Amino acid sequence: MNDLFLRACRGEAVERAPIWIMRQAGRYMAEYRAVREKVDFVTLCKTPELATEVTLQPIDALGVDAAILFSDILVPAEPMGFSLDFRPGPVLDPPVRSAADVERIRIPDPEEMSYVYMAIRMLRRELERRVPLIGFGAAPFTLAAYLVEGQGSKNFDNMKGLMFAEPVTAHALLEKVTTTLEGYLEAQVEAGAQAIQVFDSWAGILSEADYAEFALPYATRLIAKVKKTGVPVIYFALNSAHLLDAIRGCGANVAGIDWRTNLALASRRLDHKFVVQGNLDPCVLLGPKEEITRRAIRVLEAGTKAPGHIFNLGHGILPHTPVENARHLVETVQGAVSATR
Amino acid sequence: MNDLFLRACRGEAVERAPIWIMRQAGRYMAEYRAVREKVDFVTLCKTPELATEVTLQPIDALGVDAAILFSDILVPAEPMGFSLDFRPGPVLDPPVRSAADVERIRIPDPEEMSYVYMAIRMLRRELERRVPLIGFGAAPFTLAAYLVEGQGSKNFDNMKGLMFAEPVTAHALLEKVTTTLEGYLEAQVEAGAQAIQVFDSWAGILSEADYAEFALPYATRLIAKVKKTGVPVIYFALNSAHLLDAIRGCGANVAGIDWRTNLALASRRLDHKFVVQGNLDPCVLLGPKEEITRRAIRVLEAGTKAPGHIFNLGHGILPHTPVENARHLVETVQGAVSATR
Repeated sequence: MNDLFLRACRGEAVERAPIWIMRQAGRYMAEYRAVREKVDFVTLCKTPELATEVTLQPIDALGVDAAILFSDILVPAEPMGFSLDFRPGPVLDPPVRSAADVERIRIPDPEEMSYVYMAIRMLRRELERRVPLIGFGAAPFTLAAYLVEGQGSKNFDNMKGLMFAEPVTAHALLEKVTTTLEGYLEAQVEAGAQAIQVFDSWAGILSEADYAEFALPYATRLIAKVKKTGVPVIYFALNSAHLLDAIRGCGANVAGIDWRTNLALASRRLDHKFVVQGNLDPCVLLGPKEEITRRAIRVLEAGTKAPGHIFNLGHGILPHTPVENARHLVETVQGAVSATR
Repeated sequence: MNDLFLRACRGEAVERAPIWIMRQAGRYMAEYRAVREKVDFVTLCKTPELATEVTLQPIDALGVDAAILFSDILVPAEPMGFSLDFRPGPVLDPPVRSAADVERIRIPDPEEMSYVYMAIRMLRRELERRVPLIGFGAAPFTLAAYLVEGQGSKNFDNMKGLMFAEPVTAHALLEKVTTTLEGYLEAQVEAGAQAIQVFDSWAGILSEADYAEFALPYATRLIAKVKKTGVPVIYFALNSAHLLDAIRGCGANVAGIDWRTNLALASRRLDHKFVVQGNLDPCVLLGPKEEITRRAIRVLEAGTKAPGHIFNLGHGILPHTPVENARHLVETVQGAVSATR
């Protein structure tokens, strides 16, 4: 079994940087689109056989060094008492706007999301002697922000409005969300996930002071709980250049860095306390190949300045990316022997 | 005349931090909405009497220390050969996708935007013995990105695709855009604008390396040209925490900082080379008032660590902001005598 990814997560010596790609099972692949023609997104997430099928597609087609469960960070919202729909952006109903709304939120039994663990168990069988499987979930602030907004948002003014006007209510919400995510991610590990990525997709809308009050403590608690299970944790806060000082304290093994910040600089800002993951600009994969090669090598070089490096894009792969360009990236990274450690 | 703002721009001693608000003439004001019920956005920009009227509304209603011309950063696109429409987001047609498209772009005579200068001349008369008038335009990268995308974008993949696949074409486009903006902003100063703000609204989507190649050199050239006229220049790159090291070289008098980065920290990252402008989170103005006061004071305190501070929001005021909260902010800032310099 190719255990490069797991060794890199733990900061162990590796022959080369492992690579996987955020949203590697996705619309840019014809095989994925063929499945999606038959079922909608939520059904795909909830059907273990289909989630398993699309999770495996990029392992076969690209030869990446890790698989990541096909699912969505909003999966826990349904058992918490929200309807979940994609049109195509996520819509959660009813949104949380008051203390009474927070009161009504259920902390679900993790077993209510058993279809996720079933997919994980099927995947572990399929991936035996191949590559490790990553499970994932939202960071508490990000899931809470979705529950309050009811959908994606430009300014997240409802969430911030709640934080600024009713901080006690915001914290009560974050408590419930954190407890839910703890049970959910522990159950993913119990089912067989070999590493967990925590996505703090909206952390970047916060100032460092608000992040330190409303996001970091809950992410840290969640990460600690997952780490107790023994698997490594990747914490990926998008657009977080202004938060790197604070992120030092999150306790994860790996810090995901978006394409904005050079990995060497990010590692320095993080006091070299983390293996770093990233961070090619997803737009580079639109081509041409020579530019992909040139920039991938630049990322690899920057990665050597950190205590460890897992190659990835700096954000999810774009739907109109040519598959052959993704393959070219994987081949480039896997062919480049890093003389790091 | 209240010249606090102009003195602060130049780093001179001021009795207190001046305040103005990005998008202070806007939908949150009933008087503005009343005008907009009669004319569309483009017509409003092109009608000097109406642009003057809405520019003055917040001076009367809030008592801010500076006026900013009511206009739009995309105004120069029309004479460059694009149709411009707001639905409500901007739509530019035809978008630039090739070297031939760049070839077709006109560098307009600045006089083709004479309605802007006419508004500036009217405003200077109206504002006599009141407050200074700020003119503005896009930074070259931001205007170029709009011309390529044809509209707002999440990933700006067309612009980045052009930069990565055809850098020579991207630079040719940026050249033409910069020359256009130079003439446009010089003409604003000639008409009477007493300071110029350059908005690099999309710089934050770039890595520092790409910013250093495709954005900073053109912004720096534009800023130098405007400074030669004798007026101070404010450079505001949204979401630029990862770009602050590079921004040190831009040559502006004032660096606008969004709400993400504490002003004291930002000033340190900028080697204390700039007066800073900002940076209350616009969502704070949704209320309550005690929180507005508390956070405004925190911003004022951080601002004392910079060589000068102009109070502003960290981004445009939100359309559903209560006017009384904006007024409360202005009163708070104007009532707080900073013991800085």
